[in-house]
Amino acid sequence: MRRSVLLVVVLGLAIVEPVSTQGPGAAAVRSPEVRPDRSVTFRIAAPKASEVKLTCECFSGEKPLVKDEKGVWSVTLGPFEPDIYEYEFNVDGVTIPDPRNEKVKTNSRPSQISSLLDIPTSVPMFYDVKPVNHGSVEVRWYPSRAVNGTRRLHVYTPPNYDKSSTRLPVLYLLHGADGDDSSWTLFGRAPAILDNLMAERKMAPMLVVMPFGYAYPPVQGVAGDKQRADFEKDLTDDIIPFIQSNYRVHADREHRAIVGLSMGGGQALNIGLRRLDLFSRVAGFSAAVPRNASTTFKDVVADAKKINSSLKLLWLGCGSEDGLFTPNKEFSDFLTTSGVTHTWSPSTGAHTWINWRKYLQEVAPKLWSATT
Amino acid sequence: MRRSVLLVVVLGLAIVEPVSTQGPGAAAVRSPEVRPDRSVTFRIAAPKASEVKLTCECFSGEKPLVKDEKGVWSVTLGPFEPDIYEYEFNVDGVTIPDPRNEKVKTNSRPSQISSLLDIPTSVPMFYDVKPVNHGSVEVRWYPSRAVNGTRRLHVYTPPNYDKSSTRLPVLYLLHGADGDDSSWTLFGRAPAILDNLMAERKMAPMLVVMPFGYAYPPVQGVAGDKQRADFEKDLTDDIIPFIQSNYRVHADREHRAIVGLSMGGGQALNIGLRRLDLFSRVAGFSAAVPRNASTTFKDVVADAKKINSSLKLLWLGCGSEDGLFTPNKEFSDFLTTSGVTHTWSPSTGAHTWINWRKYLQEVAPKLWSATT
Repeated sequence: MRRSVLLVVVLGLAIVEPVSTQGPGAAAVRSPEVRPDRSVTFRIAAPKASEVKLTCECFSGEKPLVKDEKGVWSVTLGPFEPDIYEYEFNVDGVTIPDPRNEKVKTNSRPSQISSLLDIPTSVPMFYDVKPVNHGSVEVRWYPSRAVNGTRRLHVYTPPNYDKSSTRLPVLYLLHGADGDDSSWTLFGRAPAILDNLMAERKMAPMLVVMPFGYAYPPVQGVAGDKQRADFEKDLTDDIIPFIQSNYRVHADREHRAIVGLSMGGGQALNIGLRRLDLFSRVAGFSAAVPRNASTTFKDVVADAKKINSSLKLLWLGCGSEDGLFTPNKEFSDFLTTSGVTHTWSPSTGAHTWINWRKYLQEVAPKLWSATT
Repeated sequence: MRRSVLLVVVLGLAIVEPVSTQGPGAAAVRSPEVRPDRSVTFRIAAPKASEVKLTCECFSGEKPLVKDEKGVWSVTLGPFEPDIYEYEFNVDGVTIPDPRNEKVKTNSRPSQISSLLDIPTSVPMFYDVKPVNHGSVEVRWYPSRAVNGTRRLHVYTPPNYDKSSTRLPVLYLLHGADGDDSSWTLFGRAPAILDNLMAERKMAPMLVVMPFGYAYPPVQGVAGDKQRADFEKDLTDDIIPFIQSNYRVHADREHRAIVGLSMGGGQALNIGLRRLDLFSRVAGFSAAVPRNASTTFKDVVADAKKINSSLKLLWLGCGSEDGLFTPNKEFSDFLTTSGVTHTWSPSTGAHTWINWRKYLQEVAPKLWSATT
């Protein structure tokens, strides 16, 4: 932002402070203010607004804010359970992130930009960075013949990867419709979750590959069937060979898993159940499963015995308040009717990262034995 | 965001589509719409607003938007030169990013969340990902004794780093007051700029370390002197040893450079000019230099001969429309008066990433010879 700069000279070093473009006082507004009792005050300076409301994953519905004499709207709510919640203001009908909160949930396509509310605890949560050995995340660019271009992916390598000579199994971990290859790192907290699990010896060391699940940027409007076909081609013909030639990993189906959330859950099931030659573990987190599964998955489940003998894990989880709960329940019932062994793991909660972080923590240890 | 989900079943795969919380029509608004002639239409649905304005790095001042019968405000501007610009809407006094643009400029402290407008060309720009050999960026977590905690940094490794046995020089590249260790990757496009320069054999392969320039999160309000002292300690006592024990790099001052933008430029000058035992190349991009340099840098320039014989590069650049232009010009004059050899490279432009991307492209080749 080309803003005016105000120089505050502190002990000889000038610090650049932005001059607020929202009028006097706006820059001083503190939001969200999280108190030790885990109650939260949300604030926004909007002197000309006639109505300001708040939506948050930390409560149902919406809450009105009240304006003070300076035009600052506020509401105090909670206390809330420790977690990371998305929230938005609605100012006279326009939904916006909190202008005073630097923690922002971004997307890969035009969709709501939310703010993030992190309610901490005295004891770090399972998704917090703890003083344990840490893996690292590599951002890589690779040539994709499937889309005839250069694409980006994220790769998590476990602690001490550089110092070991052991080959690792590989989890291909897919994001949802709003996300990209950075989502599991930024919002899913996958690196911390996996570091913490390994520090507790609850899961086997593994490489985690997080691709970009769209063959073409969503805004380009490429037809859904081409999007899906070319992403699958990118994954199987470009990404898997790229990973196997650049990382110390096993290159067989026994050491390959595919897991995803929402749209990525649909992809994991569609690709994973059809490519038993490539994958031995499959999981869908709040997966975007088809409601006409008995038709679209008819070919897949025709040989339930083959699936049952091929897959070491087929896991489905969804929250009871999620719009996708019923389709997932029905998909699980369909698998049951078809004789396909699987784990159906309904939970509380909605279509949120709150659940997906928990599902990753639950499923990662099930993929390969920690003692392998 | 815990939103209702609408299932659109396309060829058997359900895609989750968010139901807009901004009322019917809002989700259909397209913004920004960049035309082949590089003109742009900006749009926002705000039926109840009485005034909507636009600020953008692509023009001076602000432009009013006009409301149509559906409550969608719009303005068409340009054509603009190919570049990446930040912009914001102001809706009845509240400055917000474009709700329909997924490209968002985030910050490390409460500051304006902007939207990004990328005006492309038929020939890729110097900061675009091209079909060349690519380096990668590693996101690492390291133990910092300086702040008694675990911290994150980004490390760029050049193309074919894994396949070479050559030790590399190291550039420590610092972000500005609004940024963090991801800023040079996300908004500075450093990986593409460096990949492209190396593909053209214009710069020597190097490791680029991008730390988080605050010892403590800015929102904690830790005093400026402790922030600065502990960051310097983190850099010199924790980061440099961490890099040298985890990467194949040279470990002497001749192969170490420190460069930063804005606040990070101030840090690069303050640390670099005082720690000639550690660094041989120093540069400030629109640096937050003190206005009382003759006092604060008196000790530093007292031995101009030592600086001149120690530094292979001392580079200062700033845009003529930047609020920091005069301080930088005066700092350069002060160095000149003090007999300190340096390059003063004034440019057009303001306090923006537009300039910092260009400065990186200009300075990176000057650090070490491409034939080294």
